[in-house]
Amino acid sequence: MLVKNFDHLWELAKEKQGKRIAVVSADDVEILHIIDMAEAEGLAEFVLLGDADTMREIIAKEGFKIKAELLHQPDHAQAAQKAVEMVVGGEAGTLMKGMLHSSTFLKAILNKEKGLNTGRHITQVSLMEKEDADGLMLLTDCAISVAPDLMGKKEILENAVDLARGLGYEKPKAAALASVEVVNPAMPETVDAALLTMMANRGQIKNCIVDGPLAFDNAYSAEAARIKGIDSPVAGNADILLMPNLTVGNAVSKAISYVGKKNLIAATVGARVPVVFNSRTETDKGKLYSIALANYLVD
Amino acid sequence: MLVKNFDHLWELAKEKQGKRIAVVSADDVEILHIIDMAEAEGLAEFVLLGDADTMREIIAKEGFKIKAELLHQPDHAQAAQKAVEMVVGGEAGTLMKGMLHSSTFLKAILNKEKGLNTGRHITQVSLMEKEDADGLMLLTDCAISVAPDLMGKKEILENAVDLARGLGYEKPKAAALASVEVVNPAMPETVDAALLTMMANRGQIKNCIVDGPLAFDNAYSAEAARIKGIDSPVAGNADILLMPNLTVGNAVSKAISYVGKKNLIAATVGARVPVVFNSRTETDKGKLYSIALANYLVD
Repeated sequence: MLVKNFDHLWELAKEKQGKRIAVVSADDVEILHIIDMAEAEGLAEFVLLGDADTMREIIAKEGFKIKAELLHQPDHAQAAQKAVEMVVGGEAGTLMKGMLHSSTFLKAILNKEKGLNTGRHITQVSLMEKEDADGLMLLTDCAISVAPDLMGKKEILENAVDLARGLGYEKPKAAALASVEVVNPAMPETVDAALLTMMANRGQIKNCIVDGPLAFDNAYSAEAARIKGIDSPVAGNADILLMPNLTVGNAVSKAISYVGKKNLIAATVGARVPVVFNSRTETDKGKLYSIALANYLVD
Repeated sequence: MLVKNFDHLWELAKEKQGKRIAVVSADDVEILHIIDMAEAEGLAEFVLLGDADTMREIIAKEGFKIKAELLHQPDHAQAAQKAVEMVVGGEAGTLMKGMLHSSTFLKAILNKEKGLNTGRHITQVSLMEKEDADGLMLLTDCAISVAPDLMGKKEILENAVDLARGLGYEKPKAAALASVEVVNPAMPETVDAALLTMMANRGQIKNCIVDGPLAFDNAYSAEAARIKGIDSPVAGNADILLMPNLTVGNAVSKAISYVGKKNLIAATVGARVPVVFNSRTETDKGKLYSIALANYLVD
């Protein structure tokens, strides 16, 4: 099933009869507000870990209609560990980060014995709708990997390819971004982009077509690529934009969101299941979409 | 006079009785097409350097109404040098790049004896309209300076401050961008951003208020800054976004243009006069705006 746009994903999530999402440290009004909305929309079912009294108080005070089971786990680290155990044991489909430190949340997920570690780094993907809303474009990494080297970029790309395949893109096209389309040793990101292209050509990166270096305009717009005389299977037609580093990914995704007024869905990938990991500054709609995405993707 | 938005700039350029713009290597149909439109709109007057026969042929064949003087200068380097001499001698207000290599064009401008060199590097600014179209925002550098060090960033900022002041922003507010708002030695752009802030506080960078590191969302949106608890005179109110490097500037400006569908005006600054230096992939409207900008700014 090819997921065409955000509305389509929303409908697919509502139809899905999946396992519950375990919310770690849900004893917070903003988190419970999102859970309340997600339940009302039928996007997913939840189990909430946190201080049970606090959760009950907030739910009563705010008039939330939350039906999810509440588990008393006031300690953040223990709540994270318990939620991971629930996923490992099949009692939950995936995890959602509530009001706790990112490092505490990730530490439980990445625990080598009891966690959801796959050996790959945890990376981030921002999804947006393509121009004609007839397809999704994945931007990665916009939030987690600061300055990946070549093999780090390979992992980021592989995580995004797996996500794209989960969304029905059997052999996604990936543009390795730089600021120019030629190899220039003075611009190290052009070197990495060219190497990733050849690694895909040689089968070292599987299930995708990679081309780079490409500048943003050539990756995004077939017309811009044509004017520049770029012959590429990816230019103007990219499913994945691989960012050269976090600074680029962060600024580009924020520019698209704040200047371009486009919704982006954040996904956190690389663990055994995609987890829900929203920024506080994310819009309610963005947070609901990322819950829909996780519910759709996990068993 | 505070230039409020692109329409305002357009009107100011039409009212301006300035010197002609000398177009270097104008013997090209795309370049002459833009000149024809700019003349028809009354945005500027021109003098065209290039192969005179070729220019006449194109003008006749395309039915252009161009009234500009044609100077026979078929050699690119000589045309660039002659155009610079015209600006130095007061016969032209500034230069516009036609169909020649960027390096040939810039070499003539930066010639130490006969050029328009100020001792500063030539840098690029992309202008966009603020959200409410009641002000301009300058993004720099999005096209020229690949990996500036601290002092290079200081020059880029100073060039942008001069441009902002030419547009009526007496003491522009500049955000030094990074991907986070805290100083982190593992993210060198956060260190440079903090140092630029302190350099402005100490009067080493004049005529502006600088704050950084700021992430794009905090620089652009007062609401995002408030949610993050950032107290800053610049957050949510920036006139200048100083990019950490070209890769960020290039990708952010292209994302705003291609995804956000916003017009950007490209300006090339750091020489004695702002010059017109458009990319081939720029829209006609964008090219006309950059002519309007140059005509408005030069004497």
